[in-house]
Amino acid sequence: MTELPKEVRQKIREGLFNGQTSGQCPGYAQANLVVLPMHYALDFLIFCQRNPKPCPLLDVTEPGNPEPKLIAPGADITCDLPKYRVYEKGELKGEFTDIKDYWTKDMMGFLLGCSFTFEKALIGAGIPVRHIEEKHNVPMYITNIECSPAGMFHGPMVVSMRPIPKEIVVRAVQVTSRFPQVHGAPVHIGDPEDIGIKDISKPDFGDMSTIYNNEVPVFWACGVTPQAVAMKVRPDVMITHAPGHMFISDKKDEDYSVL
Amino acid sequence: MTELPKEVRQKIREGLFNGQTSGQCPGYAQANLVVLPMHYALDFLIFCQRNPKPCPLLDVTEPGNPEPKLIAPGADITCDLPKYRVYEKGELKGEFTDIKDYWTKDMMGFLLGCSFTFEKALIGAGIPVRHIEEKHNVPMYITNIECSPAGMFHGPMVVSMRPIPKEIVVRAVQVTSRFPQVHGAPVHIGDPEDIGIKDISKPDFGDMSTIYNNEVPVFWACGVTPQAVAMKVRPDVMITHAPGHMFISDKKDEDYSVL
Repeated sequence: MTELPKEVRQKIREGLFNGQTSGQCPGYAQANLVVLPMHYALDFLIFCQRNPKPCPLLDVTEPGNPEPKLIAPGADITCDLPKYRVYEKGELKGEFTDIKDYWTKDMMGFLLGCSFTFEKALIGAGIPVRHIEEKHNVPMYITNIECSPAGMFHGPMVVSMRPIPKEIVVRAVQVTSRFPQVHGAPVHIGDPEDIGIKDISKPDFGDMSTIYNNEVPVFWACGVTPQAVAMKVRPDVMITHAPGHMFISDKKDEDYSVL
Repeated sequence: MTELPKEVRQKIREGLFNGQTSGQCPGYAQANLVVLPMHYALDFLIFCQRNPKPCPLLDVTEPGNPEPKLIAPGADITCDLPKYRVYEKGELKGEFTDIKDYWTKDMMGFLLGCSFTFEKALIGAGIPVRHIEEKHNVPMYITNIECSPAGMFHGPMVVSMRPIPKEIVVRAVQVTSRFPQVHGAPVHIGDPEDIGIKDISKPDFGDMSTIYNNEVPVFWACGVTPQAVAMKVRPDVMITHAPGHMFISDKKDEDYSVL
């Protein structure tokens, strides 16, 4: 029997599960985590508001309170993710299975929509997702598209790329447009150079996906953007999920569709 | 020739236009304004994030800077709206044609999506909008639907009602679903008592619309909600647009559609 998100979160909390969350609780939305001290929060919230495609905010916790009330009442973001990364002044301090030692009454958690949700929608519509087929990380690229700055936060948009057969590119736009809170429609279709990507075969993060002859590279705004932008200001402390070790919410993927 | 938003804003700024903005710059999105001192901003932003249907945030200005960079670069929210209301500790202090005397380096402006945008989409789809036909204000009701609270801000959702012929209610849902940033899909269809409205003929704000026999009352989240919620905390100063005297942005209505 498939476990509910709160059951899996309980196992994570008790140290009984610390793997990647892909494939856990199918149908439920997973989220990226960014934790910052409160004095960064106002600028960071405005940054997310101005850049909803790379930074689709699903929930924000109140200062010192680790409960994401909107997407998972009763959950605790300090121990309900399988693995965290802690950064001090922009330097990786280490990976941890809970962040109780770093959490203070000053801390706020930002939970951001994750591409797992729209990838499930693509697969459901019969559209191939190459990095899943090839079992590697999605290829990600730093673009020349500047995000709208907000206070101390600014920087380029990071995108992920999925090769799509030419005849179903339109369908891929439609399917992902339904999910504006999990990156939504693509930001670019076709020539990588148009958005400042010099060599498509050399992603800045993740691994290259095979692009077949009848396929077009399609680019979506990527949740790595807010992490990269926050890192640039070298906050005293910043905590994120470890790659692939996401927060599993109580919201269904379909809760984030608009039509 | 139709004037551009920046031309109308210039006329407003020079005192040459101070009327209601309905019908001005057709095709361009108009916005509700809430101005609050900075120390309310974090909680208010989180409130908007948690309640996107009544509080669809289109832009936030940075402390002391009156330019809404995202939706109207070069504009000035302290003088580009035709009429403002200033409240001190929750009491109406007066109506003004600019707010230069009240603006400080501490002030932040919140621009929220307005139902004008989805009403134009309804009319474009051949769906009647009764209060426009009858030339009165849209009827609004305080419901028993509690907004998700955030810090000091909490309160019930206010909704607006439009009677829709039974056979095109589904179409009305589809058309407005395309615009999640301007209140989006309805929050309720049918029996007003289900959402705590005792007497549909007595709106809490605005004027009653005629409901014909073949019609169903359909309720959308209303932009009065954030104003009502902010007012409850009786801020030292709070400034809003005067009813009907909106901010005209450079964004097209269609910029806010997701499909």
